[in-house]
Amino acid sequence: MREGDRVLLYQDPRRKWVATASRTKFHTHKGFVDLESIIGTGYGSCTKTSMGQPIWIFKPRPVDMVEAFDRPTQILYPKDIGYVLYQLGIGPGNRVAEVGTGSGVMTAALARAVNPEGHVYSYETRPDFHEAALKNLERVGVSSLATLHNKDPSQGFEENGLDAVVLDLGDPWTMTRAAWMALKGGGIVTGFTPTFNQLEKLGESLRQEGFLVLESVEVLLREMKTELGKLRPESRMVGHTAYITIARKIVNAKA
Amino acid sequence: MREGDRVLLYQDPRRKWVATASRTKFHTHKGFVDLESIIGTGYGSCTKTSMGQPIWIFKPRPVDMVEAFDRPTQILYPKDIGYVLYQLGIGPGNRVAEVGTGSGVMTAALARAVNPEGHVYSYETRPDFHEAALKNLERVGVSSLATLHNKDPSQGFEENGLDAVVLDLGDPWTMTRAAWMALKGGGIVTGFTPTFNQLEKLGESLRQEGFLVLESVEVLLREMKTELGKLRPESRMVGHTAYITIARKIVNAKA
Amino acid sequence: MREGDRVLLYQDPRRKWVATASRTKFHTHKGFVDLESIIGTGYGSCTKTSMGQPIWIFKPRPVDMVEAFDRPTQILYPKDIGYVLYQLGIGPGNRVAEVGTGSGVMTAALARAVNPEGHVYSYETRPDFHEAALKNLERVGVSSLATLHNKDPSQGFEENGLDAVVLDLGDPWTMTRAAWMALKGGGIVTGFTPTFNQLEKLGESLRQEGFLVLESVEVLLREMKTELGKLRPESRMVGHTAYITIARKIVNAKA
Amino acid sequence: MREGDRVLLYQDPRRKWVATASRTKFHTHKGFVDLESIIGTGYGSCTKTSMGQPIWIFKPRPVDMVEAFDRPTQILYPKDIGYVLYQLGIGPGNRVAEVGTGSGVMTAALARAVNPEGHVYSYETRPDFHEAALKNLERVGVSSLATLHNKDPSQGFEENGLDAVVLDLGDPWTMTRAAWMALKGGGIVTGFTPTFNQLEKLGESLRQEGFLVLESVEVLLREMKTELGKLRPESRMVGHTAYITIARKIVNAKA
Repeated sequence: MREGDRVLLYQDPRRKWVATASRTKFHTHKGFVDLESIIGTGYGSCTKTSMGQPIWIFKPRPVDMVEAFDRPTQILYPKDIGYVLYQLGIGPGNRVAEVGTGSGVMTAALARAVNPEGHVYSYETRPDFHEAALKNLERVGVSSLATLHNKDPSQGFEENGLDAVVLDLGDPWTMTRAAWMALKGGGIVTGFTPTFNQLEKLGESLRQEGFLVLESVEVLLREMKTELGKLRPESRMVGHTAYITIARKIVNAKA
Repeated sequence: MREGDRVLLYQDPRRKWVATASRTKFHTHKGFVDLESIIGTGYGSCTKTSMGQPIWIFKPRPVDMVEAFDRPTQILYPKDIGYVLYQLGIGPGNRVAEVGTGSGVMTAALARAVNPEGHVYSYETRPDFHEAALKNLERVGVSSLATLHNKDPSQGFEENGLDAVVLDLGDPWTMTRAAWMALKGGGIVTGFTPTFNQLEKLGESLRQEGFLVLESVEVLLREMKTELGKLRPESRMVGHTAYITIARKIVNAKA
Repeated sequence: MREGDRVLLYQDPRRKWVATASRTKFHTHKGFVDLESIIGTGYGSCTKTSMGQPIWIFKPRPVDMVEAFDRPTQILYPKDIGYVLYQLGIGPGNRVAEVGTGSGVMTAALARAVNPEGHVYSYETRPDFHEAALKNLERVGVSSLATLHNKDPSQGFEENGLDAVVLDLGDPWTMTRAAWMALKGGGIVTGFTPTFNQLEKLGESLRQEGFLVLESVEVLLREMKTELGKLRPESRMVGHTAYITIARKIVNAKA
Repeated sequence: MREGDRVLLYQDPRRKWVATASRTKFHTHKGFVDLESIIGTGYGSCTKTSMGQPIWIFKPRPVDMVEAFDRPTQILYPKDIGYVLYQLGIGPGNRVAEVGTGSGVMTAALARAVNPEGHVYSYETRPDFHEAALKNLERVGVSSLATLHNKDPSQGFEENGLDAVVLDLGDPWTMTRAAWMALKGGGIVTGFTPTFNQLEKLGESLRQEGFLVLESVEVLLREMKTELGKLRPESRMVGHTAYITIARKIVNAKA
């Protein structure tokens, strides 16, 4: 590890921070970590805070990086992002648009998926979200793979011939027509909708605008306690985030 | 679309097939599709079988391709693969090993994730699974990104300095020592275990062999019926596949 | 056990039958049971079919009895009935109405709950369901606790001053006004609705007609395989039956 | 409503209290309720606190009463109690034992189920739990239906010929032999076990001591938000309470 490298300081699943190996101290509620001291050590080693709390030093995963994002808004959960990325099948060279940049968590995931040669175009109407996302994407080094628009694309995206479109906004049905225009034949659109009413409205809009809906699903994540001899699911869990709808553009269904 | 292109013939979520645009007929239980007729049409268009059944023509997604794999064994579900890929954060250039190639579904997903420049090394003791996986990976065009070993790596992998190891076999605890040896410091291991007893044993083995367990989770997928005015979850669902454990190699925890 | 006693012949969770200890033979797909031979034995003993298949002899529980009902229609699940009975808190002496007798499964459960001195009034428009329910209730010995009406009560129940009303029909909102009229102040109504649209419509109707909605919930049941050393949830599960809404009549909320 | 009657003061699902109609004031965090003023009003009416907060006046359901219990210990959830009561099929006249009285929530539910003529015998080793349960049961008026023992019954219950036994303690397997001795042939035992290890151990013990295990299940409750036009499951849910095992005594399985 060299000065300037990003490191994950890991205490436990709820307390972990992304920092930079440098001549500074990182303060936790259980003492500070001397970041200079970890320069030269290897990933996977353990250090201690000034109060003796063990802290593991890891190379941050992409999911660790996005957890450290400035979040002016609710972010998508890994369980949902992972499912969508795998089902969409986005890969190197693909061109993808997103409506609802938010803090850029999904944008970053898409950017990594299309790397290299592909590109992500993401739309966001709120200037504060747009600005935060710009900084967040720069921090994780994917700025060159993503173009962020601070505008409403409902009247038409600036791009066309896209492989996929991701809709993550409150009224995704306002974007289905523009998404259809921007996609290749057979291109894929996915939408996240927290409520049943949104799910129903999105499904109808997709069908009307020339899409074939492949599936609407909900992903539930159950965390387990794995203490030896006391295995059990955790007492509390996230009960709901959003329904995920996946559809493909059909080319001769509109009159 | 040109002769030789792979196409997905899509009737409904349960009836879909991967075929090749060519001078042949593809037979379904509702008549045949004249594959020659679709040459020259675009993806997203609709054709009809000889019995009038509409069939949509799409470019197959990776998930469509692996559903068409020869499967001598139980395969992993998209809900589990998607979660693991996103949590592991494997990307272009990474080197990853897998124990338990099976039919190669996870191998193919890993290969696509490390593309280009990365590589996947996958171990399988059963010759029939190994052979089927070789053919399956060739069919989806990722053979050059994956090396399949027909051997038991419990005494040591042939590779080292790996970024990640995926364990998908009945007794994953027999591989934790070898996985530790083969991984970089801070490298990630993930294991799939259908039963609680396997989950407990894997967790213990990981802790003893020098890993820090980040999480053990279960992913549940709930499919929704989205007929207008009749939205509801499906009456039947997959109740369980496997618990997923994710851990990282620590370098100074073993005496 | 004496001649004429009801017995449960139990082979496994999926194969069990209610029969009568008598001078006849009971045929299963694995040979027959000589029912005369079990007269004089005790509950909990094991017999064998003519083909050597072990069959346990138990006193039937109420849930075993209703599983043997003639079912012209979809029946409610124990997970839902149990939750509702406990939340309603119906007890001896209560007077309860039900709309949608169906095969009488819920009617029987309510009858047992109000026993003795209470009474259940159940409405069903379809003559075939009504007839089947009459026979089913007689078979389980609760006929004297329940009055079955073969009519539509939407314009007014024949009873009033009720403690609770159970709505189990496709359009429960058509019954909320009549239910309000028939209930005591503070009386409880519960409704089962399979779809989200029905749930929404029922909730709105209840609020408009003078009810305070306490909760809308869904009960999910997960069956476990408990083979020693191989504990795990079952691979398949019931994904959805119905949403349950519970509300109480308020007396000064209607203008 | 008359002086001395129990009333439920209901503000919302999380804020509700059991009180007595009397010449006192009941204080909430949003002002007080003059309890004298509600004497003479009917159930289902609405009053207001001194700060103008609407409070509904209902007759408390049994579930409302037990929520007001002194709870020196973790209590069982309605979703689990309701399922067990319905599956056990306990009714008027039954005699049931319980090990692990706790605060008496299950004891009260069982007492109501066997009313009249039946009886519940409940064992608890901790004197503080035993004392709290005595008071709690008296408060809900079921003391005459339940006998509480402050002792460990693992060497033998004081009763026999029981219809059912409920085990709600950390090591239920220590009670399976005594439960078998105390039950009728075919009698039912149920056990609550939070961890998988306990579930496995209980299942094994039941099989060894002469029981046939009917099922092991987990009940999950999903609460819904039913605001018009914004229907969705709640964001947080209880992830796990306990596994429920149900078994029946078999009489010729032990040598």
